[in-house]
Amino acid sequence: MKTTKSECVLALTLALVAGETVLQSDEGMWLYTDPPRRQLKEKYGFEPSDAWLEHVRQSSVRFNSGGSGSFVSEDGLILSNHHVGADSLQKFGDEQHNYYRDGFFARTRAEEKKCFDLELNVLMEIEDVTDRVNSAVKADQTPEEAFAARRAVMAAIEKESLEKTGLRSDVVTLYQGGRYHLHRFKKYTDVRLVFAPEQQIAFFGGDPDNFEYPRFDLDICFFRAYENGQPARISHFLKFSSTGPAENELVFVSGHPGHTSRSLTVDELAYLRDQRFPYAMQWLNRLEVMLIAYSARNEESARRAKEFLFGVQNSRKAREGMLAGLLDPQIMARKQADETRLRQAVAGKPELREARPAWDTITAAQKVIAQNNRPYNLLESAHGFNSTLFQIARTLLRSAEEKSKPNGDRLREFRDSNRESLELELFSEEPLYDDFEQIKLAHSLTWLVGNLGYSHPVVQLALAGKSPRDRAADLVLNTRVKDVARRKKLYAGTPQDVAAAHDPLIELARTVDAEARAVRKILETQDELKQQAYAKIAKARFAFEGTSAYPDATFTLRLAYGLVKGYEEEGRKVPFQTTFAGLYERSAAHQNQPPFDLPKRWIERKSRLDLNTPFNFVSTADIIGGNSGSPNVNRQGEFVGIIFDGNIQSLVLDFIYTEEQARAVSVHSRAILESLRQVYDAGSLADELLGKRQP
Amino acid sequence: MKTTKSECVLALTLALVAGETVLQSDEGMWLYTDPPRRQLKEKYGFEPSDAWLEHVRQSSVRFNSGGSGSFVSEDGLILSNHHVGADSLQKFGDEQHNYYRDGFFARTRAEEKKCFDLELNVLMEIEDVTDRVNSAVKADQTPEEAFAARRAVMAAIEKESLEKTGLRSDVVTLYQGGRYHLHRFKKYTDVRLVFAPEQQIAFFGGDPDNFEYPRFDLDICFFRAYENGQPARISHFLKFSSTGPAENELVFVSGHPGHTSRSLTVDELAYLRDQRFPYAMQWLNRLEVMLIAYSARNEESARRAKEFLFGVQNSRKAREGMLAGLLDPQIMARKQADETRLRQAVAGKPELREARPAWDTITAAQKVIAQNNRPYNLLESAHGFNSTLFQIARTLLRSAEEKSKPNGDRLREFRDSNRESLELELFSEEPLYDDFEQIKLAHSLTWLVGNLGYSHPVVQLALAGKSPRDRAADLVLNTRVKDVARRKKLYAGTPQDVAAAHDPLIELARTVDAEARAVRKILETQDELKQQAYAKIAKARFAFEGTSAYPDATFTLRLAYGLVKGYEEEGRKVPFQTTFAGLYERSAAHQNQPPFDLPKRWIERKSRLDLNTPFNFVSTADIIGGNSGSPNVNRQGEFVGIIFDGNIQSLVLDFIYTEEQARAVSVHSRAILESLRQVYDAGSLADELLGKRQP
Repeated sequence: MKTTKSECVLALTLALVAGETVLQSDEGMWLYTDPPRRQLKEKYGFEPSDAWLEHVRQSSVRFNSGGSGSFVSEDGLILSNHHVGADSLQKFGDEQHNYYRDGFFARTRAEEKKCFDLELNVLMEIEDVTDRVNSAVKADQTPEEAFAARRAVMAAIEKESLEKTGLRSDVVTLYQGGRYHLHRFKKYTDVRLVFAPEQQIAFFGGDPDNFEYPRFDLDICFFRAYENGQPARISHFLKFSSTGPAENELVFVSGHPGHTSRSLTVDELAYLRDQRFPYAMQWLNRLEVMLIAYSARNEESARRAKEFLFGVQNSRKAREGMLAGLLDPQIMARKQADETRLRQAVAGKPELREARPAWDTITAAQKVIAQNNRPYNLLESAHGFNSTLFQIARTLLRSAEEKSKPNGDRLREFRDSNRESLELELFSEEPLYDDFEQIKLAHSLTWLVGNLGYSHPVVQLALAGKSPRDRAADLVLNTRVKDVARRKKLYAGTPQDVAAAHDPLIELARTVDAEARAVRKILETQDELKQQAYAKIAKARFAFEGTSAYPDATFTLRLAYGLVKGYEEEGRKVPFQTTFAGLYERSAAHQNQPPFDLPKRWIERKSRLDLNTPFNFVSTADIIGGNSGSPNVNRQGEFVGIIFDGNIQSLVLDFIYTEEQARAVSVHSRAILESLRQVYDAGSLADELLGKRQP
Repeated sequence: MKTTKSECVLALTLALVAGETVLQSDEGMWLYTDPPRRQLKEKYGFEPSDAWLEHVRQSSVRFNSGGSGSFVSEDGLILSNHHVGADSLQKFGDEQHNYYRDGFFARTRAEEKKCFDLELNVLMEIEDVTDRVNSAVKADQTPEEAFAARRAVMAAIEKESLEKTGLRSDVVTLYQGGRYHLHRFKKYTDVRLVFAPEQQIAFFGGDPDNFEYPRFDLDICFFRAYENGQPARISHFLKFSSTGPAENELVFVSGHPGHTSRSLTVDELAYLRDQRFPYAMQWLNRLEVMLIAYSARNEESARRAKEFLFGVQNSRKAREGMLAGLLDPQIMARKQADETRLRQAVAGKPELREARPAWDTITAAQKVIAQNNRPYNLLESAHGFNSTLFQIARTLLRSAEEKSKPNGDRLREFRDSNRESLELELFSEEPLYDDFEQIKLAHSLTWLVGNLGYSHPVVQLALAGKSPRDRAADLVLNTRVKDVARRKKLYAGTPQDVAAAHDPLIELARTVDAEARAVRKILETQDELKQQAYAKIAKARFAFEGTSAYPDATFTLRLAYGLVKGYEEEGRKVPFQTTFAGLYERSAAHQNQPPFDLPKRWIERKSRLDLNTPFNFVSTADIIGGNSGSPNVNRQGEFVGIIFDGNIQSLVLDFIYTEEQARAVSVHSRAILESLRQVYDAGSLADELLGKRQP
């Protein structure tokens, strides 16, 4: 760490002297509409053709459950991470089957298992709609009016596009409001599970090794996209490399980084550090403790909670690292210096005078958000009502109300262009368990009291004179929204039909809905103010830095690049890749005890494996959560590995790029082939990857 | 639960009709100076003699690490719980030895292992000093003056007593300030470990079974008190019963309940519910998550953190249950009704007019405490500096300052009469681990930021321009207070000597000390106000209820009683005792998986055991945390079992007694004998319990 820091400070000093931002070499989560052509040419002599870019883009798949993937065969085969597939793996399980823990392999197409509610998107077309969005917002509008106007025009653009093309159409906000793009997606909703390994090997090393490197994880999961009941015929898929990347080779990462905060003002970062992250950590700690205690009851409880627990632990460790970054005075000094430099530059340019008050506007808006964020989390994000059944009940309540409004006036998730996706989730047949719903709800009602106080009117309404435990039992055991047919009926009905159902969970949602909507409106209004201000800052940044600026991550498709390259840590060289041999050594060093134990199959098949096979590798590509499952692609456009993690030093990438030690961690393409053949007897799948069609 | 509640409501109604408190039958944690003679006589026809009471009292042992125990042989043998001995077991361990996990047995006296810093107290004499304490406080004093005067007179009484008798002398506050008693203790500081089973069997069922029943735990640990290098000769010890208690038999529990809140006003209970407990839960959740993650790294980390983790998980589950009690509207309604009744009664008695404003005084003081409790926890309770080394450093800093003051003016822990106990702890040779100290300190500095905000002056001083991780590493690696010889030297020195040491941890403690002392003073002053008000309420209660009122628990010796008796839960009868057979069945029902796995020895020796031996049993005795290790004593004054837990329904005993389902859980005396002989080949220890002297 120490080496990094002093070098960072040096880079900063140079940047200040030069009077402009010096992009760290492999920095950037680039838009496909504005790829880093200059950087790639200057540094690596590589000039991607438009065809190359289109091919990689259309081979990239977004998992709407929160991750990335890619097509790897012309028969619709998709490769992602085990931990991205986890949501589906969890939902398939029951008391007899634990696919999440034990893995799955469909030896025939007929055995491929259809996912309950998984939607995949492929980005087909991108259109800049900035001018149309901005022209809908008038300068003399109040923030409330501006927000409504912006929401309305976005919904209108999406609806028009959907009707015209039949493609899922989303207007996405980039540069915190500096640009608006219309994304048109091909959508797959018949997605079937093909293969997953045991979670033990997908997540070997568990929480201690999570976000660490060296690493030894087979974090992969295969799905297949279907259309009309047949495997989808795919024209853009990645050819699978049987050699993988070499040390210092240039690789690209095409995927969907979820969220970064690099453009945030220093005041906003301080808010994250002092309030938002501490609250998020408290909430995650509470969930983790609850889920561990629940899981310890028996094997079936552990199965029910497993994927949720993994997600919580993963978020907790990520946030710890991000918070540590915000608490690193040198990182904050860099952010402060960059902001000061830009503000000074803006002060010197009369044509950018509009941007001058932007930072203060954001600070003022942020203060209002800070005051309302706790109730927002509790009521609108439902930390006070942590239950899948509650979410379903609220969607039914709100849907009935929203659909009577014009498309542009609705809460954004209820816009026409999102209807199919919403219904896919709402009508999911995923199994829900009364005991698990009860314990989550009872704990979150207790959390509500602890955050608002017992005598708060919302708490009184929510508890209805009962203890949290009794109230949760009452709600979960008496609601009828567990029944999907019932959901469909209520969803088709009017607000009066929904009210006439007298469903206790829907009535609970109604009880707190006015307050939840009110606090959401406050935040949306302040966000509008911030968005306008950030758009001005973005404009100023464009004026100074041109296209060397890429927007913060927003779970939209991006292209990153970097070298396959080790690093130094506390004077020790960390090699660029690991091998299967290293896996067995690490397990033995921990007496094969959990979380360093190996699946039975990996113990039995050890002698069959080429132990020198590269297993995991690292690169300097600029990634963040959401990139999980992204393909690593070489200059030839071939698949050479799959992103599944970043090392602990990469967690600060949320705020700032550094390539001294921060690394993206991937599974090597050779490890995938070798383990499919030698451990899983899944030669047919390996063959498909190599383009050998099934007979 | 439902049965209980409606019956509670019924009892409450009757109480209101009768216009006075009806003590639930087996309620009470009674003072030995005022035992429940009437209740015992009326209900059970039992009249304990003074000799009986003195014998049981002097057989009772207080563990200053936080628990209870009893003498069980004339050679100083003491029986307590494994989880009370945990602190010592943990400190004995190293990379090669894990006594906490694996157990210990000294086959000879020479093998008995001397504990690092364990002090045991036996209550020899009790003197009422209420009048002397109260007369030192003048009516016209400010709360600050009153607090100082009270502290001074208590220190003076203790010092006089110590000088006169040579016995440890503590003035204890009872009835929230209604009474002051001087306790004189015989003190044992040469205490040696004799026997502990594996934690697996001591805590069989782990967190899921903690605070649950039926139960199957051998939660025992034997120590021996030494004097002058020889086993202490004990005149009062409990004869060990080889039969144990029968169903519905009357048993007594003599031990040290740590803390109850039964006398608190409703406003204070609401403060616990809305603020104190939620904060405590957040802090415990944070610790639990940190300790689990640290423990997962490797076996040695797990060993280092094990006892702390157990303690945190135990507190968390207890507080969850207590909070659930406060969130039970029917319990709060009972508290409210009781308070209303007493206030109305006071309003009707002119001679009690002094008590009338007491409730409002407490509410006002509580408001000030609520405003200051967060900084108090962070700074004075050191949640922001969670490190054993920090505590040592602060003790050295403060000791140098305090010892120059008159005895009565010092912070209470530095009074002359406490010096030996303080030094025993300060000079403990317990092993401390840099990595563990660092991680605890780094996490708690982060916690400090999350609670006060980064720009708070104390945070800035504490971090000294570094990130929490770097700062913690810096402090832990550069302090020299790890060295006990160094501690002794600094402890003997002047404030100037301590300053001249330039120890970074001592300097950190100095940096925050003014603020820590200031907030402590605020709380002490408000506590004084509350104490005066509670004393008036106590006086009023005495006027109405006489000796039927017992004081809240304060980790002072108490006598409880009750019947060995099962209960009903959700329509199912829960039997009064379990057997060894049940242990094996429960383990098998969980596929012998942790935390339901059995130690190797228990699997191998199963056939030797009489499986019908009673293992654990429950009684209606009124207990709470701190009672762990308390003996169950029959009418004949014999040891029949040892308290180690309460069931989940007992957790509300903090606020209110109920005997419908709340039960104290004990290990049966026969289970102890049988397992010592058949599982541990510790027949000599069993013989000693039965009074057969070693040859």
